[in-house]
Amino acid sequence: MADRLKYGMIGGGPGAFIGAVHRAAIRLNDEADIVAWAPSSRLGAGHIAAGGAMGIAEDRIYASFEAMAAAEGAREDKIDWVVVVTPNKYHAPAAKLFLEQGINVVCEKPLCTTVEEALDLTETAKANDCLFAVTYTYTGHVMAREARQLVRNGVIGDIRMVMGEYPQDWLLDTLETITEDNKPWRADPALSGRGAAVADLGTHIENWVNYVTGLKIDSLACHLDVFGEGGVLDNNVEALIRFENGATGIYWTSQVAIGFDNALKIRIFGDKGTIEFVQEENNYLKLSLRGEPPRIYSRGAGYLTPEASGYVRVPTGHPEGLTEAFANIYKDFAAAVKDKKAGKHVVESDYGYPTLDMGLAGVEFFNKCVDSSEAGAVWVKVDY
Amino acid sequence: MADRLKYGMIGGGPGAFIGAVHRAAIRLNDEADIVAWAPSSRLGAGHIAAGGAMGIAEDRIYASFEAMAAAEGAREDKIDWVVVVTPNKYHAPAAKLFLEQGINVVCEKPLCTTVEEALDLTETAKANDCLFAVTYTYTGHVMAREARQLVRNGVIGDIRMVMGEYPQDWLLDTLETITEDNKPWRADPALSGRGAAVADLGTHIENWVNYVTGLKIDSLACHLDVFGEGGVLDNNVEALIRFENGATGIYWTSQVAIGFDNALKIRIFGDKGTIEFVQEENNYLKLSLRGEPPRIYSRGAGYLTPEASGYVRVPTGHPEGLTEAFANIYKDFAAAVKDKKAGKHVVESDYGYPTLDMGLAGVEFFNKCVDSSEAGAVWVKVDY
Amino acid sequence: MADRLKYGMIGGGPGAFIGAVHRAAIRLNDEADIVAWAPSSRLGAGHIAAGGAMGIAEDRIYASFEAMAAAEGAREDKIDWVVVVTPNKYHAPAAKLFLEQGINVVCEKPLCTTVEEALDLTETAKANDCLFAVTYTYTGHVMAREARQLVRNGVIGDIRMVMGEYPQDWLLDTLETITEDNKPWRADPALSGRGAAVADLGTHIENWVNYVTGLKIDSLACHLDVFGEGGVLDNNVEALIRFENGATGIYWTSQVAIGFDNALKIRIFGDKGTIEFVQEENNYLKLSLRGEPPRIYSRGAGYLTPEASGYVRVPTGHPEGLTEAFANIYKDFAAAVKDKKAGKHVVESDYGYPTLDMGLAGVEFFNKCVDSSEAGAVWVKVDY
Amino acid sequence: MADRLKYGMIGGGPGAFIGAVHRAAIRLNDEADIVAWAPSSRLGAGHIAAGGAMGIAEDRIYASFEAMAAAEGAREDKIDWVVVVTPNKYHAPAAKLFLEQGINVVCEKPLCTTVEEALDLTETAKANDCLFAVTYTYTGHVMAREARQLVRNGVIGDIRMVMGEYPQDWLLDTLETITEDNKPWRADPALSGRGAAVADLGTHIENWVNYVTGLKIDSLACHLDVFGEGGVLDNNVEALIRFENGATGIYWTSQVAIGFDNALKIRIFGDKGTIEFVQEENNYLKLSLRGEPPRIYSRGAGYLTPEASGYVRVPTGHPEGLTEAFANIYKDFAAAVKDKKAGKHVVESDYGYPTLDMGLAGVEFFNKCVDSSEAGAVWVKVDY
Repeated sequence: MADRLKYGMIGGGPGAFIGAVHRAAIRLNDEADIVAWAPSSRLGAGHIAAGGAMGIAEDRIYASFEAMAAAEGAREDKIDWVVVVTPNKYHAPAAKLFLEQGINVVCEKPLCTTVEEALDLTETAKANDCLFAVTYTYTGHVMAREARQLVRNGVIGDIRMVMGEYPQDWLLDTLETITEDNKPWRADPALSGRGAAVADLGTHIENWVNYVTGLKIDSLACHLDVFGEGGVLDNNVEALIRFENGATGIYWTSQVAIGFDNALKIRIFGDKGTIEFVQEENNYLKLSLRGEPPRIYSRGAGYLTPEASGYVRVPTGHPEGLTEAFANIYKDFAAAVKDKKAGKHVVESDYGYPTLDMGLAGVEFFNKCVDSSEAGAVWVKVDY
Repeated sequence: MADRLKYGMIGGGPGAFIGAVHRAAIRLNDEADIVAWAPSSRLGAGHIAAGGAMGIAEDRIYASFEAMAAAEGAREDKIDWVVVVTPNKYHAPAAKLFLEQGINVVCEKPLCTTVEEALDLTETAKANDCLFAVTYTYTGHVMAREARQLVRNGVIGDIRMVMGEYPQDWLLDTLETITEDNKPWRADPALSGRGAAVADLGTHIENWVNYVTGLKIDSLACHLDVFGEGGVLDNNVEALIRFENGATGIYWTSQVAIGFDNALKIRIFGDKGTIEFVQEENNYLKLSLRGEPPRIYSRGAGYLTPEASGYVRVPTGHPEGLTEAFANIYKDFAAAVKDKKAGKHVVESDYGYPTLDMGLAGVEFFNKCVDSSEAGAVWVKVDY
Repeated sequence: MADRLKYGMIGGGPGAFIGAVHRAAIRLNDEADIVAWAPSSRLGAGHIAAGGAMGIAEDRIYASFEAMAAAEGAREDKIDWVVVVTPNKYHAPAAKLFLEQGINVVCEKPLCTTVEEALDLTETAKANDCLFAVTYTYTGHVMAREARQLVRNGVIGDIRMVMGEYPQDWLLDTLETITEDNKPWRADPALSGRGAAVADLGTHIENWVNYVTGLKIDSLACHLDVFGEGGVLDNNVEALIRFENGATGIYWTSQVAIGFDNALKIRIFGDKGTIEFVQEENNYLKLSLRGEPPRIYSRGAGYLTPEASGYVRVPTGHPEGLTEAFANIYKDFAAAVKDKKAGKHVVESDYGYPTLDMGLAGVEFFNKCVDSSEAGAVWVKVDY
Repeated sequence: MADRLKYGMIGGGPGAFIGAVHRAAIRLNDEADIVAWAPSSRLGAGHIAAGGAMGIAEDRIYASFEAMAAAEGAREDKIDWVVVVTPNKYHAPAAKLFLEQGINVVCEKPLCTTVEEALDLTETAKANDCLFAVTYTYTGHVMAREARQLVRNGVIGDIRMVMGEYPQDWLLDTLETITEDNKPWRADPALSGRGAAVADLGTHIENWVNYVTGLKIDSLACHLDVFGEGGVLDNNVEALIRFENGATGIYWTSQVAIGFDNALKIRIFGDKGTIEFVQEENNYLKLSLRGEPPRIYSRGAGYLTPEASGYVRVPTGHPEGLTEAFANIYKDFAAAVKDKKAGKHVVESDYGYPTLDMGLAGVEFFNKCVDSSEAGAVWVKVDY
């Protein structure tokens, strides 16, 4: 097991859903082990026990990400990458410290809270020759890869419209219990940045569309709602989009849409055909070609493109889900890390994982959405 | 059969889809007969034969709507109503002539091409004490009535967001064959007005939402696309909506959305629940209440409200469709006509059919959409 | 309107769902008028009024089907066909009397209660040169015609298996209110014959499969359940089927399957592809070809076969339903009647409506199901 | 990490889908490590490398399951359980050897090929006080647990009918390439036993129904088809079922049903309600109560029973799939193993995993299906 990879994590302690998913996804791939950890909260005996249960040696459970970056950077057997799953506010400062130690980074979305931070990270990563993935989860699904390849193969022709929506309803109960003293970090601008739903969910739409189509947003007009008594940040987002190629679109996301769990749905309309992807039915992709009956592609089927088939883990009809999507991103990233360690020249965009420029685009997107909304949902130019 | 009702029609000759549907819907109800007709095109022997096959006496097949209005207005046994299914441009002048003869009107949507015409019709109808229905078809479905009643009963609480979409793809082939000399009237501004998809389909969304929720639009920002070589009017419409009660929404309609036949879908989100109606699955309605599993209401089931059940024609599980939707509107209208003939005081909004003020709102809506789009998709106020 | 057709009806008075649907379907086609009627129940003033409202002259509202057959048979302007929608027991005696008068017959399914009756009807129809349709409704859907043509065109290859199911749940409430003195005719063997669900619903499966595939049943093993206190006839039917070509299948129907309205669903598996038709979604047909993604055919689309397209009434995406299915059968039948009246040689199976031999097969089917079940669900040979 | 569990595996080498899934599922749970392995094929350098990559020490990679049972049985630090994923024929002899060493067993389904073997395993497990799980995968889904609890809570009342189907189409291509010298073990009676589809898929239906409802089969009539040139064992199975409580049912499974990937679907009809579970949509469960609209339960929602909620890994709307289903069974099994190691009295059926008696019932089921089919699809009594 000498050639297994080693990684560390910032945040994502017991009880934090997303850290556990990252670790489970990496275990699925079975090529890397967690060896270092800095919890978000003040280090206690519980963390030592939890880290031990994960197989982390006590001396690599750190009291802060600053301490961890310094200590790991100094080790011979330093971690191959760090996973950043803290509240948004700490993404940039934490990631930067690791980059400066030459440690590759995998960071949750949104990449950070401001464009300035994102540009700084971009520069720092380049200066230190580090790899950097942003875990836009839904790009990891096999059928996201299939969608991307179908677009690249010209199957749906030139893109005219994009309809993206991402309704949830989980916030409803939370909203009623938020007080000044008791609010989740996602509802706290100090920890989360200027946007809530638009940053947490809106960037998923923005990224998935860009990942699959390559389209860049030219400008947008966005309206943000703050429904409920307890809300201080947006929980419903409605935006008109113009892309640089002349295509147009609509993005909608909500955390108060009763009856919807996590219903990311993207429809991409070309002049030859249409692709529809629904995250909750991630094992399928609907393709409609002009003048023909819509067809339902199934993950694992023989007719998939090789670019997508390479990610299939279990046969068609045996569902894959969220964890596999994460695992596919880590599979890509680990491949790049191995190649880099082997001295190969690594072009990150060749590996399939969402890259730092996509993280920057997401930060730009949600900040411009907030800008637009604050000005009365007027049209604003998008720079990145 | 002495008490059967009599109606006439303007436009809708052989080959015109919509006229045939109106007549079939009225036959389904079996309480009125067509007795007069003025085709849109120059009167010929074919029209006499076609009219005869419909059972219309030759002397009541007219060369123009002007001639028909004059002649019918002068008859003792005049028609109880006229159905206007001409190209949009003629709606207002034709309807006005019949109103002036004291003849009730059923008019296709959009009501007319300008707000001025719509206001004039409103005044004329009132002055001549005439009934006036606008055939926004999709309000006729049993499950549209159920949706309306559920909202009225407070089942979904206060409305926060409305998502309306109506994609089609039929225009794609037509687009390629349009030339200056050969264009369908819907693509010809001279016959159709300033809007195409926005007037033909957008008004269906606008109306259905208003019909079911009672919400009035305060302002909107709308982007219109004209895809394809042959297009001169919009074929893709994207709009942000603000309602007077503070709710917000997004309306999208398209005639170039490959893979979509006629996919009107409206989702209305309240603070207690959500209603979802899909026209192509008009026998069902999805209701999601907060914290409960979504439930699928079925047309004809015993748990429907009485207000909807009264329109059920065939038992649950035996599909009804477009023709029944039209027939329900005519059932409502005929009830009002009978009451009026019986000397009762008729409050049109009590009968269930879409009324003249809804026609006005539709004309205002699509014209304001065009205004907004021409100014760069800026926000414009909606007056009616 | 000199060449309009005239028909009469036996049974199907006010309140009877199915008679009203037949009449509505014929009105949709607009080529025939009801001119004679014999209600099932004792003739009263209400019938005269109801008949008058239908436009039937008082002297052609008859006290019995016997009286009607005699009187109509003697008229110069006799009806072109009679529609038989009485309880099952009267189908054969009523139809026979009309056939003997040379009057064509349209009869509800099941054709009659015994095979002997069915054979007698067959002989009588032939001897009197009469046309005879059995209204197996679901053969009338456009997509049923498409399915039939796809099979005929060899698209799914040789058929290997057939899965047919038809669950309903309407009987549940009825079951609890049935008493000796108060039972619906469908639950009364004296009026309904030896089978209830198996005759009412089972024959729909049996016929649809035969209509679409041409396959004949060789033998079957059938288990009938009588759930509930009030039941005397079967309300749940489970059968294994062997076809003459070696294909096998399963038919299931139920009237006590909670959550199912009228869910006829047929899947036909060939060695090249599979066809799936769901009556409640009759505007679609699913076709899966080996090694390819399943595709969803939409009624009205340009890719349909000409044999199916000819029945399309409203454009794709505008739902048709039960009434149109009936209307298509009447469209076929009226075409045959006209041709016969014009002196042409009529081969009934060329016209598309379900014929007398299909009625016979249905009667044989449900009787053999009862035979099998009574003997312990053993295999029995099917003769017709 | 001192208290982590250790397991070994028999079969399931590189390229074998199912062994990899078992290992991945155990990694997801992160409480046990693979430490011993005996591949099915002749031990080679590739196995040593593959085992090394899994973290298995070279001296615990064995040339045969016999060698492994003996060696592991003799170790102080013996494995806590062995996973048996060999061809069916070796299940019983391999499992028996481990049981005799006091080693707990997790065995793939079908448990073995004959009832005699199954009874012998039952006795051996009891005699050696060993735990034994049979990996009927689809009992591991959260919504399978929810279904079971809803039935136990009486939500659907007394069960009347059960409809189970499990169509696949993967065999089609394989069928054409099978020769005497080149056939997959599943198509080889010598390795697979008397049944193919009926053993591989039919037992999944039989078990899921029993697991969720507790119903025992009284008797069955089963027809087996062998379609295609290359087939020697059944690839299409059609059976009528009678349960001991008087309920009836139909089971169908196929490997040649074009258009179906892995479409296990079970519908359980009670006198109060109906439950529907579709494996390919395992994050949902449909519940229809009498007289109410069907409702769609979503995995992870707050209204689930505690018995199901305990298995939720990621929030509602974030799909779980096959691997999580396996992992839940291993979670149950590991809990029982830990309790047994802690000296507690373990009643296996309390832990939720499918037990040895369920394995026995599956073997009885498929053998009786073959008996019935060979005798002409006659009814046969089911003993276990």
